[in-house]
Amino acid sequence: MANFPPPWTLGQLASLLDAKLQGPADFVVDRPAAADEDDPRGIAFAESEKYLRTAEESHIGALLLPPSLDTTKPHLTVAHPRRAFGALLAWALKPLPLQPGIHPTAVVADSAQIDASASIGPYAVVECGVVIGARCRVYAHAYIGEGCILEEQCVIYPHAVLYRDVVLGARTVIHAGAILGSDGFGYFWDGKGQQKVPQTGRVMLGADCEIGSLTAIDRATAGTTRVDDGVKIDNLVQIAHNVRIGEHTVIASLCGVSGSARIGKRVTMAGKADLVDHVSICDDVMLGGRTAVARDINVPGAYLGAPAMPARDGLKALALQSRIPDLFERMRALETRIKELEAKD
Amino acid sequence: MANFPPPWTLGQLASLLDAKLQGPADFVVDRPAAADEDDPRGIAFAESEKYLRTAEESHIGALLLPPSLDTTKPHLTVAHPRRAFGALLAWALKPLPLQPGIHPTAVVADSAQIDASASIGPYAVVECGVVIGARCRVYAHAYIGEGCILEEQCVIYPHAVLYRDVVLGARTVIHAGAILGSDGFGYFWDGKGQQKVPQTGRVMLGADCEIGSLTAIDRATAGTTRVDDGVKIDNLVQIAHNVRIGEHTVIASLCGVSGSARIGKRVTMAGKADLVDHVSICDDVMLGGRTAVARDINVPGAYLGAPAMPARDGLKALALQSRIPDLFERMRALETRIKELEAKD
Amino acid sequence: MANFPPPWTLGQLASLLDAKLQGPADFVVDRPAAADEDDPRGIAFAESEKYLRTAEESHIGALLLPPSLDTTKPHLTVAHPRRAFGALLAWALKPLPLQPGIHPTAVVADSAQIDASASIGPYAVVECGVVIGARCRVYAHAYIGEGCILEEQCVIYPHAVLYRDVVLGARTVIHAGAILGSDGFGYFWDGKGQQKVPQTGRVMLGADCEIGSLTAIDRATAGTTRVDDGVKIDNLVQIAHNVRIGEHTVIASLCGVSGSARIGKRVTMAGKADLVDHVSICDDVMLGGRTAVARDINVPGAYLGAPAMPARDGLKALALQSRIPDLFERMRALETRIKELEAKD
Repeated sequence: MANFPPPWTLGQLASLLDAKLQGPADFVVDRPAAADEDDPRGIAFAESEKYLRTAEESHIGALLLPPSLDTTKPHLTVAHPRRAFGALLAWALKPLPLQPGIHPTAVVADSAQIDASASIGPYAVVECGVVIGARCRVYAHAYIGEGCILEEQCVIYPHAVLYRDVVLGARTVIHAGAILGSDGFGYFWDGKGQQKVPQTGRVMLGADCEIGSLTAIDRATAGTTRVDDGVKIDNLVQIAHNVRIGEHTVIASLCGVSGSARIGKRVTMAGKADLVDHVSICDDVMLGGRTAVARDINVPGAYLGAPAMPARDGLKALALQSRIPDLFERMRALETRIKELEAKD
Repeated sequence: MANFPPPWTLGQLASLLDAKLQGPADFVVDRPAAADEDDPRGIAFAESEKYLRTAEESHIGALLLPPSLDTTKPHLTVAHPRRAFGALLAWALKPLPLQPGIHPTAVVADSAQIDASASIGPYAVVECGVVIGARCRVYAHAYIGEGCILEEQCVIYPHAVLYRDVVLGARTVIHAGAILGSDGFGYFWDGKGQQKVPQTGRVMLGADCEIGSLTAIDRATAGTTRVDDGVKIDNLVQIAHNVRIGEHTVIASLCGVSGSARIGKRVTMAGKADLVDHVSICDDVMLGGRTAVARDINVPGAYLGAPAMPARDGLKALALQSRIPDLFERMRALETRIKELEAKD
Repeated sequence: MANFPPPWTLGQLASLLDAKLQGPADFVVDRPAAADEDDPRGIAFAESEKYLRTAEESHIGALLLPPSLDTTKPHLTVAHPRRAFGALLAWALKPLPLQPGIHPTAVVADSAQIDASASIGPYAVVECGVVIGARCRVYAHAYIGEGCILEEQCVIYPHAVLYRDVVLGARTVIHAGAILGSDGFGYFWDGKGQQKVPQTGRVMLGADCEIGSLTAIDRATAGTTRVDDGVKIDNLVQIAHNVRIGEHTVIASLCGVSGSARIGKRVTMAGKADLVDHVSICDDVMLGGRTAVARDINVPGAYLGAPAMPARDGLKALALQSRIPDLFERMRALETRIKELEAKD
């Protein structure tokens, strides 16, 4: 059932999802939707009374509900509404269109090796020595620089740029406007001006990575900026030169990882977290939003704050921020009272 | 007087702006400029003694002044210098050039419907099912994905990317390198790796929106990421999946709005403010720079700080940051003194 | 010795670097690398015992060492290993390929003046009135808007966008996806909606500047957004309208400089620092990571914190963040003790 695009009837969905039909079998839905959207042709899910109320107040057309919930709207009763909704999402997914083969407007160097099953979109530029594997999809305006290697089934969305010597593992996805392999930010002051340290290295991503739109991953000064298998990076993230990121790590939007920092496996960085240069984080660490890591973290667990502290402490410190003015007041009051006590002495 | 490009003579401007000419009528200015720029062919405005002094110390050529100010430089006396300067800006504005019609190098799908009065620039790619309205301007290298709809007079600057199913209301402007409709950042851990939640939704912008360069607005997981009429977003902003933003809201650079967050009407977010996921902000809220919203805001007004607090409190808390070390000192001193008192007891 | 690409033999390097060969003269290395990389064909440097140990634990092939260090790995002994390594970096540097002349797919306006020694890549668009100087390199998909001027030896990487009237001094480098000259973020509320202030100015960069990937520099409202000679800006930085940045200033990733801010010469901004609008910073200031400048800084030196304070104070304040909850505890304890003392009185 890999591909069953909408529109769907509730009857079809009941049968495919092994659900109990509660409403007209021929009721048509056009797409999965959010419970609070006024979309009479959408189908959403609700797992709690609260979400069900939201759905009932909106014009959403149909619902996926657990046996414990009921509504007068057309709905399907299923054991796991969220899981069933996931199936709808998968069926509804439509990739950006891309014609098979190499678009006549693509500029492909003679020495590039492009698998016959790969697709290259209009105005893509593929430079010398590039290797593009089976079933790769390179969209319009992508730039694949000299010596890049894309293993099978990579997807390069429109306007992504790979400078030279970028290697992508199988099934890795690069979103629009992401820039991989641009120069690391390295200069030294020679007494007259900033002199550039030549940036000669490369960028290697493992398999099953996904890199968000407008994210930058710089080439190493020497050697390799490395992102291991299964790493997911959101939009507008900065990964500096010589960084290494372990398997299955997840980095949310507007994070920054400074030069030569090391991030372990299965680390989570929430939005706007960052690491100073040369710092390292062990496996299985979670950084809360805006956490600033300025020293190595060697113990797995959750961290929060600027500078990073164990999340429990960080939450306390954050919660007290608004009471700092109060603390100054109390301090002044105490100082007065103690002066009075001392005077009496 | 929609279009009266420079160069201008002071005499022309005096007549057009209904101003009193104070200097040679044939004095030529080439452009509006800032008062502190050494631009002898520029004309600036000053509304205060302070700005006038700045202007007199620079080589700015001419000035717009209120009746209360005077200078030996060529100038025009007007009731409202700032307003008059606004008129000059409007006259001086020159759009990026774009030839009428569809550039021969544009790749336009057969099924795309492009209004005869629209312009499509070189190397633009317009995919199947796209609808482009009257007098739209789509610049070079723009990518307009399958099923996108642009109502009349939209402007898509060079290198902007619209993935599939992005809808833009009339007169909406997308700046260079902005990416609309890329996948939301949704994964779940299946015990072995991060599995992608298919991102099937769309992005809808209202009329009269303006989206800055290098800003990302993700498609919804299901349903719609929605930005209502008149919203203005600066450069390098992240708008995550399923977010909704109310009319006339203004969001400055490097802000982040996490998944499913809701922002009301006429909200202002200063630079680097952000919202965690699923949080909501009511109408008429102002968030100061770097404000972090982690809980719903239900009361209109100004907020500041991380976490967000009423601006008055936030200002106090910020102002006291530098005195926190001092507070520790005072605490230590108090503890000593109280110990002494207790000893005496 | 401007160009001596690898592979190298250790014997060749010994002779070129005036180093003592410690190992087989015919040992081949393919590239400079980091000491901790498992790259048997790489050559790294180590200046301390610590780095040497790291290198010995990795599979790095060869090393540059000072006379005070020794290893059984093939290595070269040199007085200044870091400097020698810098020479290797320079020799190893390979620019992105670009054919001489104007690529047949580039769209170049008739009125553009392009020096015969400049190179223009595939699908670049060069608009009317543009002047491109000697030995400039304009890569694929770059957009050079009307009236832009590039002095000699500028490099515009793929997908960079220059709106109209952007001027670049000699040898200035613009990385992929950077956007120069887009509209400043200026609106005013007219009681019904946000009205746009026309953005009519330009952007001028001096000589020897380097602008990172996905960085935005907005045109001035009127006049000029100015970046002086030798300024280096990292990826994902926002430079707003009418900003001025003095010579040799360095700005790291994810910094934001708000409208009309002034930054002096030789200023350093570490990652995520920012300035509010209209604020000014004098020469020779260093801002630590995440520093927020909300008031003028008139004294050279290092600053840290939000709001910015002298770095010494900022470090103290940061170090105490995690002890704020403790401070509240101590305050409560003191209040109790003083109450007891007062009761006894």
